[in-house]
Amino acid sequence: MSILESYLEGMWRTGAGEGAAVADAVTGEIVTRVSSEELDLAAAVTYARRTGLAALGELTFQQRAAALKAAALALQERKQELYDLSARAGATRSDAAVDVDGGIGTVLVYSSLARKGLPDHTLIVEDDPIPLGRGGTFAGRHVLTTPRGISVQINAFNFPVWGMLEKLAPALLAGLPTIVKPATPTAYIAAHAVHIIADVLPPGAIQLVAGRVPGLFDLLGGQDHIGFTGSAATAAQLRSDPAITRRSARFNAEADSLNCSVLGPDAVPGEPEFELFADALVTEMTVKAGQKCTAIRRAFVPVNLIDDVAAAIEARLSQVLVGAPGVDGVTMGALVGLAQREDVRAAVARLSGAASIVFGDPRKVEVAGADAERGAFLSPLLLRADDVDRPEPHEVEAFGPVSTLLPYRCSTELIDLIARGEGSLTGSVVSYDHDFVRRIVLGAAAHHGRILVLDRDSAAESTGHGTPMPQLVHGGPGRAGGGEEEGGLRAVHAHLRRTALQGGPATLDTILSKE
Amino acid sequence: MSILESYLEGMWRTGAGEGAAVADAVTGEIVTRVSSEELDLAAAVTYARRTGLAALGELTFQQRAAALKAAALALQERKQELYDLSARAGATRSDAAVDVDGGIGTVLVYSSLARKGLPDHTLIVEDDPIPLGRGGTFAGRHVLTTPRGISVQINAFNFPVWGMLEKLAPALLAGLPTIVKPATPTAYIAAHAVHIIADVLPPGAIQLVAGRVPGLFDLLGGQDHIGFTGSAATAAQLRSDPAITRRSARFNAEADSLNCSVLGPDAVPGEPEFELFADALVTEMTVKAGQKCTAIRRAFVPVNLIDDVAAAIEARLSQVLVGAPGVDGVTMGALVGLAQREDVRAAVARLSGAASIVFGDPRKVEVAGADAERGAFLSPLLLRADDVDRPEPHEVEAFGPVSTLLPYRCSTELIDLIARGEGSLTGSVVSYDHDFVRRIVLGAAAHHGRILVLDRDSAAESTGHGTPMPQLVHGGPGRAGGGEEEGGLRAVHAHLRRTALQGGPATLDTILSKE
Repeated sequence: MSILESYLEGMWRTGAGEGAAVADAVTGEIVTRVSSEELDLAAAVTYARRTGLAALGELTFQQRAAALKAAALALQERKQELYDLSARAGATRSDAAVDVDGGIGTVLVYSSLARKGLPDHTLIVEDDPIPLGRGGTFAGRHVLTTPRGISVQINAFNFPVWGMLEKLAPALLAGLPTIVKPATPTAYIAAHAVHIIADVLPPGAIQLVAGRVPGLFDLLGGQDHIGFTGSAATAAQLRSDPAITRRSARFNAEADSLNCSVLGPDAVPGEPEFELFADALVTEMTVKAGQKCTAIRRAFVPVNLIDDVAAAIEARLSQVLVGAPGVDGVTMGALVGLAQREDVRAAVARLSGAASIVFGDPRKVEVAGADAERGAFLSPLLLRADDVDRPEPHEVEAFGPVSTLLPYRCSTELIDLIARGEGSLTGSVVSYDHDFVRRIVLGAAAHHGRILVLDRDSAAESTGHGTPMPQLVHGGPGRAGGGEEEGGLRAVHAHLRRTALQGGPATLDTILSKE
Repeated sequence: MSILESYLEGMWRTGAGEGAAVADAVTGEIVTRVSSEELDLAAAVTYARRTGLAALGELTFQQRAAALKAAALALQERKQELYDLSARAGATRSDAAVDVDGGIGTVLVYSSLARKGLPDHTLIVEDDPIPLGRGGTFAGRHVLTTPRGISVQINAFNFPVWGMLEKLAPALLAGLPTIVKPATPTAYIAAHAVHIIADVLPPGAIQLVAGRVPGLFDLLGGQDHIGFTGSAATAAQLRSDPAITRRSARFNAEADSLNCSVLGPDAVPGEPEFELFADALVTEMTVKAGQKCTAIRRAFVPVNLIDDVAAAIEARLSQVLVGAPGVDGVTMGALVGLAQREDVRAAVARLSGAASIVFGDPRKVEVAGADAERGAFLSPLLLRADDVDRPEPHEVEAFGPVSTLLPYRCSTELIDLIARGEGSLTGSVVSYDHDFVRRIVLGAAAHHGRILVLDRDSAAESTGHGTPMPQLVHGGPGRAGGGEEEGGLRAVHAHLRRTALQGGPATLDTILSKE
C-alpha cells in the first residue's frame, strides 16, 4: 500500500519511509499508509506566508466568500466519493452525512453570512468614530485586518470533512492561508476533500500534511493562528509550546468533554419530553458510534425516574443494529479503529468502578455484515452510577457509544453535579417546566459553550444536542478547551487582528475607505 | 520598618518574616517591607469565590456601575495622598497624574459606558433570535453570563493605581471578584488605593496580596481570569502554568514591547509635524522616566532627516531637568529603584553594540534636589542606529528614558522594519501626507494594538502616543503579549462567558428576561 500524499506548495507530495498503516475500520485491511518524513514543512510555511497570504490578500471578503461557495459546490458534486471513503472508517451513510453534508452546509452558511455581513473590502471597520476630544478634531476607531500570518489546523479523526471545513471557512474569509494536519486514522478522507477543492481555491489558500508535523510550531508566532480539535491532554501539551506561551500565537482548542443532558422532573413517562430525552440520548450514543466531542456522557435524571429512563433506553438500544456501513438495517457502524476500541474499553473499565453496566457488553457485540473482532465494533453501553459523588462519571470520558445515567434530587444538587464536569461543549435540558429550565440553564451556562432546550414545542425543528451550528459558538470552558469556534462571523473576527486607530476623523476616513 | 499589610478576606493582614525591603526611589530610605509569608491564599480564593461572587452576583450591571463610580469618587477626594506616595517611587506630580487621575478617569469612563450600554440585569443577551428552522419554532441566541470564578490581576510597578483600576473596573462590572497582586516596588501605593476603596465596594469584590503568590495558580481553573501586565518573559512563564495550559483559565497578557514612532518624509524641519514628532518623542522618553510599556523605543525617521531630528531631540533633552519630584523646575523624576536602573544600563549596553549614544550618559546625570547615586536617577538617553539590520534595536528594550533613532529609505522597508518588533502595543505615524499615513497604518496594523496618527489638524486634542484610552483596545500581538484590555465594553464582555442557547423562541425569552 502506497503512502498517502500531502498537498504542499501547490503539489501532491509523498512522505518517505514505511509510514504508519491505517486500517479499514470494518475489515481491518490496510487502506493507506501515512508519513510526512522528508516533507519540507518550512517551505510549506513560507509558501503559505508568501503565495497564500498574497493571493488571499488580493481578494475582498466578498470575493473570498465566492471562492468558498465554489469549493462547497465542488464538494457537493463529488460527495458520493467522500461517503464511500467514510464507510471504510466505520461511518454509516447517515454518519457520513453529518460529516460531509454538515461540512458543505457549514461552508455555505459562512459564504452566505460573509456575503451579507462583510464588506467588499479587505478590512472591517468595527465602529463609528469615538470622540476623544471636545472639539471633534480627534477620535478613535477600531479596525480588523488580516494578520501577516497563517492558520495551522489540527483536526480530530471523527469528522475529517466537517472538522476541516469549519476551520478552513473562517480562516479563508479572514484572508489567512491554511495548513491542515488531519488526524492520521481518517487523513485519507480529508486529503480527498482537499483533492476536490484545492484547484477551486486561490493558490496557497490550503495545504495539507498527512502525518506528524515535527518542528512546525517552531515556525509559528504572534501573527499566526492555531486551531485544535482533539483530546484535552493534547490540547494542554500543544498549549505549552513556546509558539503560544512565548510568541503569543493564537491558540483555539476544542476538546471533548463530559457533556450532560438533563431530564426535567416534569418529564415523567407519558409526557413527550420523556420520549424526546430517551430518543436524543440513544441518537447521541449511536451516531458516529458515539465518537463525538459533543455526545452526552452524563445523563442526569430525577432519582424517582431513573428506573423508567433506564428501561426506556434499554428498549431503544436493543433495536440498534451494529454492523458494516451499507448493510441492510445497520444503524450503528464501527469505531475508527481497534486502538480506539481498546481506549473505550479501558475508559469503561474505569467508569465501572463507580457505575454498573445496564445495557451492552464491552467485550461482545453481534455484528451484521462484518467480523466483530477484525472490525472495530463495540456494543452501545449504557451505565448507571447511583453514587453521584464518585469522581469517575464526571472525569472519565469513554469516546464511543457510552453514556452514564446519574440520578439527581433537586436543582441545586443538579447544578453542582453539572459543574463537576469542569466545563463542557454542550448541555441539554429536556423539560416543559419553564421555571426549571430557566434555573438549570442559567445555573449551568458558565460551564457550557452551548445549551439546548428541548421540548414538545421545538422538537420537530430542533437540530439536536450534538450538532454544532455554524451560526452559534462551538467550544466550551475549562476541560472543553476554553475556546470558541463558529458563532457566525465571530469566527472570522477571531482570525483578524483588532487595532485601535486614533487621529483626526477625516484622516481615519481616508485610511479606512477602499482605494 | 513594618510589613506592608495585605487585604484578604475583608481584613488587613500582615505577612510573616523579614519581608523584602522597598526603597524610596529618590532617597534610598526604606519605605516599607513586603511579605506574603503565612498569608492564607487558599482562604482568600475561597472568600472571593463565595462572598465576593455572591455579593457581586446580587447586583445588576447598573448597580455595579454605581459601585465603581463611588470608588472613583472616593479616590478623587483623597488623591493627594496617592500623589505623595507616588513621589517616593520617583514620580513627578504630572507622572502621578497619569497614574492616579488616569486611573480614576478610567473607572469613571467604565462606569459611564456601563450605565449607558449594559442592562439592569445580570446577563447580556447578545443578539436577536437566529432562526434555525423554517417553521420558526426553533432558534438560537447568545448570552453572556458571569463565570463561577475570580479575576487574578498581576500588575506592573509603573502604574500602581491606573494598572490596578483598568483591570478591576471591567472585572467588577462582569461580576468577578478580584485578587490583585501589585508589583513589589510600588505595592504600597496600590495598597493605599485599596484602603480608600475597599469599604465602598461590595464585600469580597477586591482583595490584595502584597508579595509573592506561591500556589495561587494551582487554585485557578476554567472559570477564572488572569490579567497580567509586565515583561514578556514573565508573561511566557505564567502562560506555561497548568492553570492555563491544562485547565484553560483565561489569560490576558499586556507586555512591554518595542513600540515605534514614524516621522513621514513630508515632515521636514519647518513643518508642524516635525515639531510634533520631536515633542512627542521627548515626552515619551521623560514621562515616568520612560518606564511605560507604550513608550517609543524605535523612532523611525527618513534617512535624509535623521541629523535634523537628532539635533531637535538633543536640543529638547538638554532642557530636561532630572531631579526629586516636587523640586522646582524638575521635569523628570527617578526610576523606580536602583535595580531597575541597573537593568536599563545593561540594556543600553546591549543596544550600544548596534547604536551610538547621541545624548546622555548612562553613568552620569545632574540631579536637582537629591543624590544622583542614592536615588535611582538616570539621564535621558537618545541612541542612533544607522545599521537598521542589526537585531538589537528591534529586540532589546531599555525600560527607562531611552529611545533609538533609526533611518528608513522607503515605505516598504519601513513596514518590514516595524514588523521586526514582533508585535507592539502602540505605534504612531507623524505626517500630513495622507497617502503615506494610509500605507504605513495599514501595513503596520496587524503588528499593533493601537496606532496613533498625529498631524497639525488633530494635535491640539490628541491624547498622545503613550496613553491608552479606556474606550480603545490596549494590548498588542506577539511580543506585546497577544492580549486585549480596555476597548470600552469589550473588556467587560471578555470577562463574561458566552453561551449559545437553542430552543423555542418563547422559551429562550423566558430564560433571558429579568425575573
